[in-house]
Amino acid sequence: MTEANGQWRLRRRPQGMVQESDFEYTEEPVPVPQEGQVLVRNCYLAFEPAMRGWLDDVPSYLPPVGIGEVMRASTLGQVLESRHPDFAPGEVVTGMLGWQRFAVVGGDGGPPGLTKVPPEVPPTRALGALGTTGLTAYFGMLRVGEVREGDAVLVSGAAGATGSVAAQIARLRGAAKVVGIAGGPRKCAWLRERARLDAAIDYKSEPVGRRLREEFPGGVDLFFDNVGGPILDAALLAMAQNGRIVLCGGISTYNEKEPPPGPRNLMQVVIRRLTLRGFILLDFLGQARQAQAELRGWLDAGKLVCEEDIQEGFENTPRTFLRLFEGKNLGKQLLRIAELEAPGG
Amino acid sequence: MTEANGQWRLRRRPQGMVQESDFEYTEEPVPVPQEGQVLVRNCYLAFEPAMRGWLDDVPSYLPPVGIGEVMRASTLGQVLESRHPDFAPGEVVTGMLGWQRFAVVGGDGGPPGLTKVPPEVPPTRALGALGTTGLTAYFGMLRVGEVREGDAVLVSGAAGATGSVAAQIARLRGAAKVVGIAGGPRKCAWLRERARLDAAIDYKSEPVGRRLREEFPGGVDLFFDNVGGPILDAALLAMAQNGRIVLCGGISTYNEKEPPPGPRNLMQVVIRRLTLRGFILLDFLGQARQAQAELRGWLDAGKLVCEEDIQEGFENTPRTFLRLFEGKNLGKQLLRIAELEAPGG
Repeated sequence: MTEANGQWRLRRRPQGMVQESDFEYTEEPVPVPQEGQVLVRNCYLAFEPAMRGWLDDVPSYLPPVGIGEVMRASTLGQVLESRHPDFAPGEVVTGMLGWQRFAVVGGDGGPPGLTKVPPEVPPTRALGALGTTGLTAYFGMLRVGEVREGDAVLVSGAAGATGSVAAQIARLRGAAKVVGIAGGPRKCAWLRERARLDAAIDYKSEPVGRRLREEFPGGVDLFFDNVGGPILDAALLAMAQNGRIVLCGGISTYNEKEPPPGPRNLMQVVIRRLTLRGFILLDFLGQARQAQAELRGWLDAGKLVCEEDIQEGFENTPRTFLRLFEGKNLGKQLLRIAELEAPGG
Repeated sequence: MTEANGQWRLRRRPQGMVQESDFEYTEEPVPVPQEGQVLVRNCYLAFEPAMRGWLDDVPSYLPPVGIGEVMRASTLGQVLESRHPDFAPGEVVTGMLGWQRFAVVGGDGGPPGLTKVPPEVPPTRALGALGTTGLTAYFGMLRVGEVREGDAVLVSGAAGATGSVAAQIARLRGAAKVVGIAGGPRKCAWLRERARLDAAIDYKSEPVGRRLREEFPGGVDLFFDNVGGPILDAALLAMAQNGRIVLCGGISTYNEKEPPPGPRNLMQVVIRRLTLRGFILLDFLGQARQAQAELRGWLDAGKLVCEEDIQEGFENTPRTFLRLFEGKNLGKQLLRIAELEAPGG
């Protein structure tokens, strides 16, 4: 193999908005698998807003990515060479292999941290609706938010990879009304027409507070929040008594130099007897298989639709990451960096 | 009866910090009870931070007090004259009779909204540890916070009427550690010595964040918050994974012209998988009798100690209300405006 292993490493911690120049491109030889190891060629990189949090040197649910380290990311790839009994060349796998063309995993005696993608699953779905973002939506809406038949449900960041699945799960579980908040007419049209939500609010052109009062005269029973900031503040004034808020993320705040002030309307949590719950997907991974089975059922039946925004070229890796914070992606943000080879090809 | 009915009415809505001049003193004749009504002489007025919220013309769990209306407040008094079969002269009662010397209640066919104080109960306790603040502490700590044996518990506003009871209930229910936050050495000494908490943090002279890290190396399992603002923000960084926060109130924010920004560390709710719950005592009143019985048992056994700060003189009514926001009261803030007469006296 004469190809080099291209990698994107963290050059410095972003100050405020993350920039392409916060990362640097490096190359090293393609690693050689030792006994118990597997060599994988990454074909798709997956991007999530939460990755922004991994760049800051603050305590979190995962350690920060170190300066000079390959950027952590979920990936979809293909086994090139295996010295582990459970994996064979050609198998399609997902893992947290990071922003690099090749990776060697395993060899420490434990499982090599790869998940096989079944042949009947469209591979990129394993990064989106069946991957971390789809599972986050699933557990957040069902286990944390405990959506119930008849609920009036609001989802922010509703055209994103997690929000779009969360909103549709609420609809599938019998919510009386599901409204999504997203930025721009294209995303809002998608929410109404493809995701079949009851309404969409374009926060870039509509007054969110007034639209929430119009759409939810009886208040919001369950708010699944991906964005925080002013939208969370507006939603606090639209909640029904005993309403629940699932705090899944706060993309509106991730690129601030320091955490911005929180919602002014926090006392509504008292006045309206609200429950706010935060969660991290890691805590639910033990139930992932059952969740993926249910998500696959919905996808195969056409009840759940998912979009993928697939950019091209490893050189565009940091650029593609920035699309999340520019609001450019509809659905799952992916980057193709190599072709998956056909089985036996 | 030649005495006039002195009253304190809301003159104007406070702009920012409530002032004595936001209220005005008026007099009218002592009302005469009609068929089904009860005439009560108020002897003690009770003061709670939540009353500040009733002065703003914003939607809340109770309608705002109208301009020109007698200020709403819990009171302890004595029946002077009764034309209702359930009440007799001399009986000691609590009710929401407001800032006035006399009130007539009932007559609309329903119960007159009075609760008799049993003779064996020290009467002012019916406004404090057995009244709204004690019940708020009880339900907030047990039903909302669901304190468990072994919990590491933090209470803010811990020397106040609600906080002091909440903290002691946590101790009585087997919390592994209970720490209170209060302002000034007198309150902190009381928390350690009389309320027998494990530690007290003086937010006026100590760095709260650092002290929380010292007192809770494993994190706070349950935070009962009465104050909001910077203390809530600091506590968010001290919570244990899966910690619970009971939002009981936010006295630090009540006198702002508009709601101040919320906590910068709100994303800790996600990262640490926290649950925040707000509540209002009204929702638990159906269980008040059982709660009062348990509180009385603790009080009678000396396991729960409660302070009352009793000021004197009806002319000092607005002034006494302001003491809450000046942090002057230790325990329940009361004002004596008339003597309770001895039974049969």
